[in-house]
Amino acid sequence: MSAGAVAYARENAGRFLDELKTLLRIPSVSTTPEHKGDVEKAAEWVASELRRIGMEHVEVIRAAEGHPLVYADWLHAAGKPTVLCYAHYDVQPPDPLDEWVSPPFEPTERNGNLYARGAVDDKGQLVTQLKALESLLHPTTPKPGVSGAPGSQDGKLPINVRVIYEGEEEVGGERIAGFVQEHPERLKADFALISDTEMFAPELPTLCVGLRGMIYTELEVRGAKTDLHSGMYGGAAPNPFVALAQIIAGLKDRDGKILIPGFYDDVKAPSGDELAAWKKLPFDEEEYREKEVGASKLVGEKGYSAIERTWARPTLDVHGIVGGFIGAGAKTVIPAKATAKVSMRLVPDMTPEKAFRQYKEYVEKIKPEGVTVEVRLIHSGEAIVIGTDNPYVKAATTALKKVWGKDTVFIRSGGSIPIVGDFEKHLKIPSVMMGFGLPDDGLHAPNEKFCIGNFHRGIESLIEFFDEVGA
Amino acid sequence: MSAGAVAYARENAGRFLDELKTLLRIPSVSTTPEHKGDVEKAAEWVASELRRIGMEHVEVIRAAEGHPLVYADWLHAAGKPTVLCYAHYDVQPPDPLDEWVSPPFEPTERNGNLYARGAVDDKGQLVTQLKALESLLHPTTPKPGVSGAPGSQDGKLPINVRVIYEGEEEVGGERIAGFVQEHPERLKADFALISDTEMFAPELPTLCVGLRGMIYTELEVRGAKTDLHSGMYGGAAPNPFVALAQIIAGLKDRDGKILIPGFYDDVKAPSGDELAAWKKLPFDEEEYREKEVGASKLVGEKGYSAIERTWARPTLDVHGIVGGFIGAGAKTVIPAKATAKVSMRLVPDMTPEKAFRQYKEYVEKIKPEGVTVEVRLIHSGEAIVIGTDNPYVKAATTALKKVWGKDTVFIRSGGSIPIVGDFEKHLKIPSVMMGFGLPDDGLHAPNEKFCIGNFHRGIESLIEFFDEVGA
Repeated sequence: MSAGAVAYARENAGRFLDELKTLLRIPSVSTTPEHKGDVEKAAEWVASELRRIGMEHVEVIRAAEGHPLVYADWLHAAGKPTVLCYAHYDVQPPDPLDEWVSPPFEPTERNGNLYARGAVDDKGQLVTQLKALESLLHPTTPKPGVSGAPGSQDGKLPINVRVIYEGEEEVGGERIAGFVQEHPERLKADFALISDTEMFAPELPTLCVGLRGMIYTELEVRGAKTDLHSGMYGGAAPNPFVALAQIIAGLKDRDGKILIPGFYDDVKAPSGDELAAWKKLPFDEEEYREKEVGASKLVGEKGYSAIERTWARPTLDVHGIVGGFIGAGAKTVIPAKATAKVSMRLVPDMTPEKAFRQYKEYVEKIKPEGVTVEVRLIHSGEAIVIGTDNPYVKAATTALKKVWGKDTVFIRSGGSIPIVGDFEKHLKIPSVMMGFGLPDDGLHAPNEKFCIGNFHRGIESLIEFFDEVGA
Repeated sequence: MSAGAVAYARENAGRFLDELKTLLRIPSVSTTPEHKGDVEKAAEWVASELRRIGMEHVEVIRAAEGHPLVYADWLHAAGKPTVLCYAHYDVQPPDPLDEWVSPPFEPTERNGNLYARGAVDDKGQLVTQLKALESLLHPTTPKPGVSGAPGSQDGKLPINVRVIYEGEEEVGGERIAGFVQEHPERLKADFALISDTEMFAPELPTLCVGLRGMIYTELEVRGAKTDLHSGMYGGAAPNPFVALAQIIAGLKDRDGKILIPGFYDDVKAPSGDELAAWKKLPFDEEEYREKEVGASKLVGEKGYSAIERTWARPTLDVHGIVGGFIGAGAKTVIPAKATAKVSMRLVPDMTPEKAFRQYKEYVEKIKPEGVTVEVRLIHSGEAIVIGTDNPYVKAATTALKKVWGKDTVFIRSGGSIPIVGDFEKHLKIPSVMMGFGLPDDGLHAPNEKFCIGNFHRGIESLIEFFDEVGA
């Protein structure tokens, strides 16, 4: 059954890529209010594509606040399992703009890659789903003996499909989390397909079976009631930047160990089998340091490999500090306040609630005198581990072997996909995290890209996967 | 001789204030390139006023880079001393804009004050000089018996006057420093009058006889070669913000003691007499904390009063940290670099060169692994102490007593006026730092103001001062 769909995907490969570019040109940055209209536009584009390829009950679901969800289904495969397809059409801000080789919202092909903000995270991967569904719904009829002249026919999907796409993944996914909780019946399925992860290495089919959770916070420190001159008041007025530096330096030691009391109490170590499998992965820490990270030295807790540190250990990072003078030149101000954006990645069995409580209490304890500090939770997500013995994971490995010719490796990801936890909690379904990004795709960074070959083989992988699940 | 000038100043008080407002409406922010034209405009306004009131050899002195100097003179008081009048017509940036009650470049009167960026620092004080000169050059002839109908006449100055105004005080004053060094003959004078300081308290005539020096620096920390996703790389990639926090926390302990080795070696304590005089000043630390600083606690080195800490002890402050994500919401990035703006205030006998060398070496020593750090000097100035026994300081106290009815107090300032050091070094002249700002004027902060009464009495004080020097 999949042969006609794969043939269709190959015939239409050029158009598929062009249509991805159309979506990438919409600057649907969900974190900044001025792009609200663009996020809406991207939602409308996705909905109209779903209608065009023959999906049913297509709906752009809007709430009073936030960005819309896009829903669609096709439920005519009687007796077959139902998949819930998830991806997101919003993107991260493109800054720093001056480091992009080509403009972030003008997708550009170079070296077999497509460069644009959202190329891999997550528009390129969302479109692999759209194009797999389109190919299955409009397969090519092979005409034996008439080479190069295939014809398209009306097809049907091998399984039942529901689609839910969100536009707030990069800002915490509040809308979809609420929708999953309030309308589980509208998303009833046997498993979810999450297209928002990466392969461990080029040509190495990969399923992600573990994710770190997170808490994203703001630390707002206030000193004097107003900005003061550092000449007049230096030596008397508290400096919120210095106070933040002291707090941050107190949160984590120089070896990357988080100093919050009790923070590691619930950390569950990976199984011996999992650790053994990770050791066999094609991974060279020195090459990773030099080529991928590009720092003089990797950092982090002693006694753990880089893979363990990024997949199975909690971490703490600072993303920026708001306030004060950041223009060119000099301004001798003691700012009245400064706000640090601080996040922590969590691992099983930590919970966001407990981690945030421990963090907040500790910050209030270590804050220097003379300042007040407000600790705010911006968003959070649970850590998750998926069992590798469920039938959908097995079907995925079969499909991947067909397309890539290799056994699948099981990895975790250091990132967070909170929706996987929501699906587990409210829909009681496991997630198959099958993605086609590569480690050097630069997601969230300038010059984000998606390997064009992976885009096309990703589409074929999903065709085979749906076919295998429906077999 | 001063009576006619004072009468003229009083008759024209309303116009004087209006003309100050005209200057304040020009957003001559020297730190930001986009205001270059406005700085130029302010220089032209000052020059045209100098011409209008009858000063001679008025010249806007431009260099290939930077902002212009404005020069003028009047040298017809044969046998009398020559004063070099200094002030600056550039201002600090007005941010944070949303904290201004009235717009920063629309001068507004409230509660007897004039609110605007630059009101007290330093346009209001520059205009006190202009108006004192104007009043002396055009004194009113008192017509006995004809009340309210005085007439103006051509006058002359009681002393020789040179004027040099700069437009780069807020960015380090490179142009004027170079000019003083290269053309000492054009600024030949017996003493300088610096109008850029404040009174210790309302109604308390004050001369500033000591200034802290400073070094203003940037600490640029680089980790990974590009911005990275904190989920994927958290636990392996160095975080420049965390590294900066660790460095900053290592520069200064929680009691405000600077930890740079040798930093205090050359600190010269104030004399016993000076310390005793400071203790008699009308200063309540608790009131200062609550009303002026508005923090829950004052900070700084143990064992020193707030006055000692801000006038006679070196300090270290952070003004802002550039880089990373500072928008609303969340972006989970490990930035490739972050740059902190860090300054240190210096006291006699420290030198900027030695302090910067000690600081740079120490930063390189304490920087965490995995990052590189570049330490840049943005600008610097020498600390200074003026002897209270020189005749110009004595003349100033006589003049101030006449206008304010009280004995002058001698204070220091925690701020830096590098030009005072340049005048001493290259022109071999002492400076009289006579200013009419008040401690709550909010210079460099939102809602900067100048007390309108001090503006007018400042003009009269300068009239009496010039008269006294020429007597």
